[in-house]
Amino acid sequence: MGYRDRMLDLKNDKRFRYVLIFKNHGEAAGASLEHPHSQLIALPIVPRRVREEVDSCWHYYDEKERCIFCDIIRQERDTGERIVCENEHFITLAPYASRFPFEMWLLPKAHSSSYENNQSSMYASLARMLKDTLMRLDEVLDRPAYNFMIHTSPIGEEINDHYHWHIEIIPKLTKVAGFEWGTGFYINPTPPEEAARFLREAKIATPVPAQKK
Amino acid sequence: MGYRDRMLDLKNDKRFRYVLIFKNHGEAAGASLEHPHSQLIALPIVPRRVREEVDSCWHYYDEKERCIFCDIIRQERDTGERIVCENEHFITLAPYASRFPFEMWLLPKAHSSSYENNQSSMYASLARMLKDTLMRLDEVLDRPAYNFMIHTSPIGEEINDHYHWHIEIIPKLTKVAGFEWGTGFYINPTPPEEAARFLREAKIATPVPAQKK
Repeated sequence: MGYRDRMLDLKNDKRFRYVLIFKNHGEAAGASLEHPHSQLIALPIVPRRVREEVDSCWHYYDEKERCIFCDIIRQERDTGERIVCENEHFITLAPYASRFPFEMWLLPKAHSSSYENNQSSMYASLARMLKDTLMRLDEVLDRPAYNFMIHTSPIGEEINDHYHWHIEIIPKLTKVAGFEWGTGFYINPTPPEEAARFLREAKIATPVPAQKK
Repeated sequence: MGYRDRMLDLKNDKRFRYVLIFKNHGEAAGASLEHPHSQLIALPIVPRRVREEVDSCWHYYDEKERCIFCDIIRQERDTGERIVCENEHFITLAPYASRFPFEMWLLPKAHSSSYENNQSSMYASLARMLKDTLMRLDEVLDRPAYNFMIHTSPIGEEINDHYHWHIEIIPKLTKVAGFEWGTGFYINPTPPEEAARFLREAKIATPVPAQKK
């Protein structure tokens, strides 16, 4: 995908510490343009939210000597109930205790700490997987507004054993309101197991079969 | 206000560690009922967002021996440019580097660490101040959707020198989208100084005069 070339180029600018790629799809998700588009913002600092996630993964690795996302993928493939779809290189899950209804994470199945450091063939596989995932979402929820964000390692920390890049997809079905702003907790009326079942069973044109056990 | 009696009563239940009071006004702010209402949720843990705010205040106090919110109020009254309105006991500010356009904080001017531990006369003054503040918001932005949340000390930590209870008011004018979810940063197109000026100069029925220097 073109994202990768843009990221690699921006990393030549020594001012930047993090590159965020995201997509706001639909008016409720904050899209400000009519035509399909995604966005890239390069930042001179590592955002706090990113720092916390990467550091938490490091603490887990420090204790267990395993990547937490690799452990999550292993556990989810054992039970199968939160798996949405899989292909050779990628898997999409409805994460355990999701914050949002029909929230999904799309992850590389093999450990990979940064989005931009993968073989070219991986990006074609990713594109197919992302398309498959979003088609399922469109089918089940009738083309909802959503955001997706690529979560990857900060610049200068690209190669590591503790962080696992992935894409988080958040359909805009509920409102973030007083309770969420006041606590940082999220009320989610749809269990991820139920969301995953709907998404897994969705009838789409060119499905990637979910390898449910 | 009735909030206080509900809080004091709920605090008799030893399971609870935090009581959040909030209001979602308007459909865009997540209101699920047509009639005006606010909500109270008692929680068996201190939410992470609350813990972080209280702990940050404690660190500031530990270093400076002053409450950070008392310092903010002092500084804002010196410059005046972010003050929205004031009465005898309360002040409303557009906080420095606000996350949201027209975000406001309503605070007691004298140090007070918890919402429920104040003299009865304070609540009448608060009610007038909150009404004044929200009337200004309605006048300037033509009755926007908004959330407000009461920020107060956790149960068991009510009386302290480092935390200062207050109400945060967030009009829903922008969307929280991919950039915000990916970073924890917020894009705010309206400087708080500009928002405060509009709100301060709003023509409302029974204004509380802003004591701008």
